[in-house]
Amino acid sequence: MSNDIILLGHGSGGKLSHQLLDELIIPTLSRVAQRDQNDSAVLEGIESNRLAFTTDSYVVDPIFFSGGNIGDLAINGTINDLAMSGACPLAISVGLILEEGLLLDDLRRILESMRQAAEAAGVVIVTGDTKVVPRGKGDKVFINTSGIGVFDHGLRIGGSGARPGDKVLINGTIGDHGMAVLASREGLELESDIATDSVALNGMVSDLLNQFGEAIHVLRDPTRGGVATTLKEIALQSGVDICLQEKELPVKEAVAGACAILGLDPMFVANEGKLLVFVDPHRADDVLAAMRRRPEGERAALIGEVEATSTGRVMMRTAIGGLRAIEMLTGEQLPRIC
Amino acid sequence: MSNDIILLGHGSGGKLSHQLLDELIIPTLSRVAQRDQNDSAVLEGIESNRLAFTTDSYVVDPIFFSGGNIGDLAINGTINDLAMSGACPLAISVGLILEEGLLLDDLRRILESMRQAAEAAGVVIVTGDTKVVPRGKGDKVFINTSGIGVFDHGLRIGGSGARPGDKVLINGTIGDHGMAVLASREGLELESDIATDSVALNGMVSDLLNQFGEAIHVLRDPTRGGVATTLKEIALQSGVDICLQEKELPVKEAVAGACAILGLDPMFVANEGKLLVFVDPHRADDVLAAMRRRPEGERAALIGEVEATSTGRVMMRTAIGGLRAIEMLTGEQLPRIC
Repeated sequence: MSNDIILLGHGSGGKLSHQLLDELIIPTLSRVAQRDQNDSAVLEGIESNRLAFTTDSYVVDPIFFSGGNIGDLAINGTINDLAMSGACPLAISVGLILEEGLLLDDLRRILESMRQAAEAAGVVIVTGDTKVVPRGKGDKVFINTSGIGVFDHGLRIGGSGARPGDKVLINGTIGDHGMAVLASREGLELESDIATDSVALNGMVSDLLNQFGEAIHVLRDPTRGGVATTLKEIALQSGVDICLQEKELPVKEAVAGACAILGLDPMFVANEGKLLVFVDPHRADDVLAAMRRRPEGERAALIGEVEATSTGRVMMRTAIGGLRAIEMLTGEQLPRIC
Repeated sequence: MSNDIILLGHGSGGKLSHQLLDELIIPTLSRVAQRDQNDSAVLEGIESNRLAFTTDSYVVDPIFFSGGNIGDLAINGTINDLAMSGACPLAISVGLILEEGLLLDDLRRILESMRQAAEAAGVVIVTGDTKVVPRGKGDKVFINTSGIGVFDHGLRIGGSGARPGDKVLINGTIGDHGMAVLASREGLELESDIATDSVALNGMVSDLLNQFGEAIHVLRDPTRGGVATTLKEIALQSGVDICLQEKELPVKEAVAGACAILGLDPMFVANEGKLLVFVDPHRADDVLAAMRRRPEGERAALIGEVEATSTGRVMMRTAIGGLRAIEMLTGEQLPRIC
């Protein structure tokens, strides 16, 4: 490219747009992106008559942070939303909104991360769109990813499937992503091992559904609003009470320390590579063991259980033996975390 | 809603996010939106093993303009991208990026337009996402819509299908959308009949494919970059020469006049309710008649033909008899037109 920043003309649909697409976007995404100059991608040979469809826009600030950037976040996040419905992610779309003046080198790094994340998860980027807004009307880059998934089973996985007796599992430590972004944003000198947990969870979900099938009742990734808000949503959707054991919640020391200093509660901090699994109590130990066999589940833990049919309370037995009600996040604890 | 503007907390994923979703977004889109609190929408009973998938982000400025707003534009645009591949639009996702301070009344108007546009086209909004960015880091509202379409036929419609001899048809006047947005943006006092042409074209496409099947070789909507850029793309994709007749190009007098004053060429101005049809010459008159029978095709015209296999030239026979080469739009003639 002859210019080293994004210009308004890159969003015109004309020559500069084609140049950006042909010289940067397509080649950088090319190992997974199909070259398709038509208005839609066409996917052939779909063998499922049930599809999952999801969308998410990513506006994280800063766009680069410890352990990742907005690009892999956008790919992993949408893959995970598909996986949480029990679907196998099949194809992803990428909608870029670029701010005039964005460094092309930054865009290139982001696109490379997207390609790597898609490859790692075995998902194909099939279609896209690029818009440019003037300086001061955006913030470097916003990314929308939408995704289509297919089902290779007849299971119904959703937030309303929690049943009394279910055990609640999580695949690892909480709050890592939110604290990593906050540290990068504020330039905080936090412990060095705080990095985003952003990772695709479709492999783990596929493992669990293949091995345990109907014993898996709910899958949900606790992103914005954290574990607390997500559990509250599930409790309300399923009409059950959930009781957590605070001492079982896996939290990295560095994250716990940073949260304490900043007055944040890791229960409300966003994760991007975590999932909550509600499972039949008779299979809980086996599911936990299966989760721990995968690298993204090494620190998996059983954190609570579903107590009874009710109006959707979430309670936490604290480390010192008290009982605390968990509500949804109020306010904007950490804006632009994803 | 107790507040009348968008706050950062509306994007937190917590209580305010749920309130915005439950009290404004879902009820306003409700006639077409399925209430789905899970991470993905699940679509059942898909009978096609071939799918179309597309995405577009809308950053038009201003968000309200003569004849429409960013909401119906975002719905119609994605429906049209699906239709241009020959697919029947099935489901749409909506990703909102809101700027802190956006008036809730403006958001409500936009969402209502989205519902109406989806209803009019017979398409369902099935999933969505809402993010909020701080004041000065966005511009009121950006909308991504992605869409899934299915095929009820075995036809292959794409930009590489143009053949020597094909007639080139368009369903009406060119440049209306771009000039309507420009007039609203600049506060120009243009002729009163300049309004966006934004409309869903899936009904017309379905009619044409049902009636004329394999005689339809290319469908493409000339949005950003206008008719000129779109024809140049098709010429390059198909490896053909295209020759246009300037005097056959339908242009509203008011649009032509405004373009002349502003030094713009309507051939390069965006449209949002137009399609170019490349058709077997033996069926061209019948296709033209069928297009004219629909309200969105009243001013349909035969504007040119494909001349020979070549490297992709587009030529225009001018009104005074000259021959002019048409290239893609250069620069950013009209930024943020969609």
